[in-house]
Amino acid sequence: MRIKLVIEYDGTHFAGFQRQPGLRTVDQTLEESILRLTGQKVKVLGAGRTDAKVHALGQVVAFDIQDNPIPPGQFAKALKGYLPPDIGVLRSEEVGPDFHPRYSAKGKRYRYLIYRQPEGYTLVRDRAHLVTEALELEKVKEACALLEGEHDFSAFMTKGSQVKNTIRNVFSCSVVEAYPWLKLEIAADGFLYHMVRNIVGTLIEVGKGKIAPRDLGKIIESGQRAMGGPTAPPQGLYLVEVYY
Amino acid sequence: MRIKLVIEYDGTHFAGFQRQPGLRTVDQTLEESILRLTGQKVKVLGAGRTDAKVHALGQVVAFDIQDNPIPPGQFAKALKGYLPPDIGVLRSEEVGPDFHPRYSAKGKRYRYLIYRQPEGYTLVRDRAHLVTEALELEKVKEACALLEGEHDFSAFMTKGSQVKNTIRNVFSCSVVEAYPWLKLEIAADGFLYHMVRNIVGTLIEVGKGKIAPRDLGKIIESGQRAMGGPTAPPQGLYLVEVYY
Repeated sequence: MRIKLVIEYDGTHFAGFQRQPGLRTVDQTLEESILRLTGQKVKVLGAGRTDAKVHALGQVVAFDIQDNPIPPGQFAKALKGYLPPDIGVLRSEEVGPDFHPRYSAKGKRYRYLIYRQPEGYTLVRDRAHLVTEALELEKVKEACALLEGEHDFSAFMTKGSQVKNTIRNVFSCSVVEAYPWLKLEIAADGFLYHMVRNIVGTLIEVGKGKIAPRDLGKIIESGQRAMGGPTAPPQGLYLVEVYY
Repeated sequence: MRIKLVIEYDGTHFAGFQRQPGLRTVDQTLEESILRLTGQKVKVLGAGRTDAKVHALGQVVAFDIQDNPIPPGQFAKALKGYLPPDIGVLRSEEVGPDFHPRYSAKGKRYRYLIYRQPEGYTLVRDRAHLVTEALELEKVKEACALLEGEHDFSAFMTKGSQVKNTIRNVFSCSVVEAYPWLKLEIAADGFLYHMVRNIVGTLIEVGKGKIAPRDLGKIIESGQRAMGGPTAPPQGLYLVEVYY
């Protein structure tokens, strides 16, 4: 039986989603919790391989389990007591044998939170990126809109992945201010390595007036990572939703 | 020279503000940071002795320091690099020798954050109290208003302090909903031990319909802690401001 879970986690004390020897990862922590609940060793696959310190509000995982005595719809509730406080499980259901959390996904939505004042940042330092400089929001919105659509996003990919096809379709890019918060959301059919954080780092440069909004087109065309802004730090990033 | 600091902290990993042998406290951590910055041992006094896991956005502390080479107004900036990430310092200034952060205070304002849905609570579990049951907000507001004014608040004091005068003047009690958040704020000339958490625990019972709003008067008059609701947990509480 294949079971799908929708989970959330505080990424602060994880070395990322995917297993790394000797480090605390989300997949391994889930596998250990499922082992303690069911007595069975499973292999957990995730929709998005979030980096260290990156959070999730709607990560999707799946695993195969033999002889599962727990009704699939009740699995989430049963698992709760076996998870550490920094992982939560929202829903569970049985899925078909062809379902793969990553390959079956039609897209994903990420959120990036920026905090705009020094006062209070101590309380949200692991949940948002601090940017106190003045930002021209209209310019950020203009640049954000230019990212929408199908483009080769090589210029927003950090080297280090084996991916061949770097064309992605950005469904939407939005910027909402609710001072002291600035919320960016990007939905796409897929994301390259560090793509959201590289886009956010570039949009912040646009807000500061260091990159003109219309240059976004040139940066995309160049395919050169060095043309954009720096990679925004991980703690402001949230995997919010996976579309199927 | 007496220096006043306005500080904020994430209370999660502190055993409270006030020194306790063998435990990590805010006052001791500040004293260690000031020692490393200035080479001088000082004794830090605070306006509010917050409990373990309770946060501050505007705690006020003061200390005497001899031969201080740092201009008082620059002390906050200088200290920043010596503080751990869970303490922030917002402002510093020189005050007169009669200033005492607690005894000079005319009042304080506390905030209590309640989170109203299971989704996302993993990310705010150390910053808010989870209450997913239906709450009748109008009743909570009605009860809140009945707490305003000068009363003997014995019924909202947890035993364990040596205080003799249990009369306090609550300047204001407010309830604001911004789903999934519920924010309670209470300002008063002073607070008894666990007073805010005991009031919040009682207001939650009012919201659930277990205590009638008009019974707040009876609870106050009774002076009996057992008449009110349970003590709300510490992680939702914030010391927001100290008035002088």
